[in-house]
Amino acid sequence: MSGGGDGNEAYGHRAFKRSRSHFTDRITADGRDGWPVEAGRYRLVVSRACPWASRAVISRRLLGLEDALPLAVTDPVQDDRSWRFTLDPDGRDPVLGIRYLAEAYERREPGHPGGVSVPAVVDVPSGRLVTNDYQQLTLDLATEWTALHRPGAPDLYPQRLRDEIDAVMADVYEDLNNGVYRAGFAHEQAGYEAACTGVFRRLELLSERLAGQRYLVGDTITEADIRLFTTLVRFDAVYHGHFKCNRWKLTEDPVLWAYARDLFQTPGFGDTVDFDHIKRHYYQVHAGINPTRIVPLGPDLSGWLTPHRREELGGRPFGDGTPPGPVPAGEEVPARGRP
Amino acid sequence: MSGGGDGNEAYGHRAFKRSRSHFTDRITADGRDGWPVEAGRYRLVVSRACPWASRAVISRRLLGLEDALPLAVTDPVQDDRSWRFTLDPDGRDPVLGIRYLAEAYERREPGHPGGVSVPAVVDVPSGRLVTNDYQQLTLDLATEWTALHRPGAPDLYPQRLRDEIDAVMADVYEDLNNGVYRAGFAHEQAGYEAACTGVFRRLELLSERLAGQRYLVGDTITEADIRLFTTLVRFDAVYHGHFKCNRWKLTEDPVLWAYARDLFQTPGFGDTVDFDHIKRHYYQVHAGINPTRIVPLGPDLSGWLTPHRREELGGRPFGDGTPPGPVPAGEEVPARGRP
Repeated sequence: MSGGGDGNEAYGHRAFKRSRSHFTDRITADGRDGWPVEAGRYRLVVSRACPWASRAVISRRLLGLEDALPLAVTDPVQDDRSWRFTLDPDGRDPVLGIRYLAEAYERREPGHPGGVSVPAVVDVPSGRLVTNDYQQLTLDLATEWTALHRPGAPDLYPQRLRDEIDAVMADVYEDLNNGVYRAGFAHEQAGYEAACTGVFRRLELLSERLAGQRYLVGDTITEADIRLFTTLVRFDAVYHGHFKCNRWKLTEDPVLWAYARDLFQTPGFGDTVDFDHIKRHYYQVHAGINPTRIVPLGPDLSGWLTPHRREELGGRPFGDGTPPGPVPAGEEVPARGRP
Repeated sequence: MSGGGDGNEAYGHRAFKRSRSHFTDRITADGRDGWPVEAGRYRLVVSRACPWASRAVISRRLLGLEDALPLAVTDPVQDDRSWRFTLDPDGRDPVLGIRYLAEAYERREPGHPGGVSVPAVVDVPSGRLVTNDYQQLTLDLATEWTALHRPGAPDLYPQRLRDEIDAVMADVYEDLNNGVYRAGFAHEQAGYEAACTGVFRRLELLSERLAGQRYLVGDTITEADIRLFTTLVRFDAVYHGHFKCNRWKLTEDPVLWAYARDLFQTPGFGDTVDFDHIKRHYYQVHAGINPTRIVPLGPDLSGWLTPHRREELGGRPFGDGTPPGPVPAGEEVPARGRP
């Protein structure tokens, strides 16, 4: 997301508030908002540091949308103009030709008042931002972009399970996805303690739920797993220390740690994760909570690749579908970002 | 210790430096510096937060010097006049009658230029500081205060092992006791990484050493164990997160974690530890690395009281001596500071 953090974040007078997405147009099969699903027309701009953007990176891989929806990866460390394409030659996105994601926001709405956040989908012909609505984006990839899915793509948001998926995701959002931010950006002890307590209460409930079933809802990977994974994979690397969510590490909960490793080792999850981007983003951008901007050497990440034995619980990761193929050339996470 | 940290700390232009003790008079059996060992004459001023001061608190317990050398415990959070007696009625030490430890320093040397640090030994009749030399103090408690030791007091600095004890303590000081501070107070990435790497290299070497022997030197508790313990007991609570020494937690190294629990559960060690003071001191005083001054809820401390099975390695904790008796009335660590 945007601003001082990864986006859509605002500091209220006393407590951390996540601002609403400002651009909520949807790209749909019928194009009712003026943005029809179309291969190659849009560009998905993300930071691999950002959990909200990483949802879309994972969904795109699982659904095989890599060719249909090309990816632009920003520098994990924003400057005062926010997300920038300094990883690309000449510091410009090679397709959009812009140096800052803010330029696509500006083309959409000159002088727009909100922050600049990822994930952002940009219309390539006009260079205009279409949407930065991270909550809707992945649901639309799963349900509106079906004509462009790969053969064997899983159903990440099955109709018959949506109520349960939505309920799980709402709790995970409140207590975990956003709860870690409320803990980390708290300015007062009481606000921190409430958020941190909520984080661990939710983790404990999820650990109980996942002790006997491989995935959160049903017996296949769904959107709910993607949204939990993007927080869990960052937990020990940044939320434990930087955001002070430190009752225990993820590695200390056998169930959640095995669940997270299972997903990490599933094609489309771990192959999108760049721990180097994650750590540098959080520790270097949030100077308000880490004034030295020093990035810790830990934690030891080697455990992510160890056996998890979650297969013993059964489950069909991709349901009637198949795993995604290899990461497209040029999108591989550099060695320094991998366990 | 003093100033922005726990004492004897100074921020150089680029890297953290620990300043020398300023007052190095020794209290000895023969009184050659003018300060003879004498029951009830001196007052040991400490913070339970401070690892350097905690060495003396442990030694005093193990040696049974509680009556001979009464204890004053400061507030764990200094203000701009440093350590203060705000835990006592009317905010004054009941024996010295002062509100700030700095007053004893001032009586010793008006306008003294150094910081105010703990541990500090104050001469009660004159109200003057005698010494704040944390490196020498515990050695003198072990070797000069012998006439006042309890029956059954251990020999914490046996003559025949001093060379080995000194060598072990020198490495532990450089890489661990002080290394965690160099990591935590680093202003540059390279300095942090060098210090943090040194911390974990030393921990790994110590883990190898302690895999087959119960204590660091010989088969009994010595000064070397005390000095390692005071850093280990703070490791997960503050050094792991606050000082970014986060490759792994102490609880993740089976040998060191069992060694630390063994000492913690030995009378004279764990009964001196106040995790509440430790956490509040580090997180609230070092605003330069924790501007919000929020104190984390974690880590879970219950593991400190679990079985360690180090008895199986043999060893005689107190050699030919005996364990110390219970904590004197009035010196118990409050429940909120205990695991």
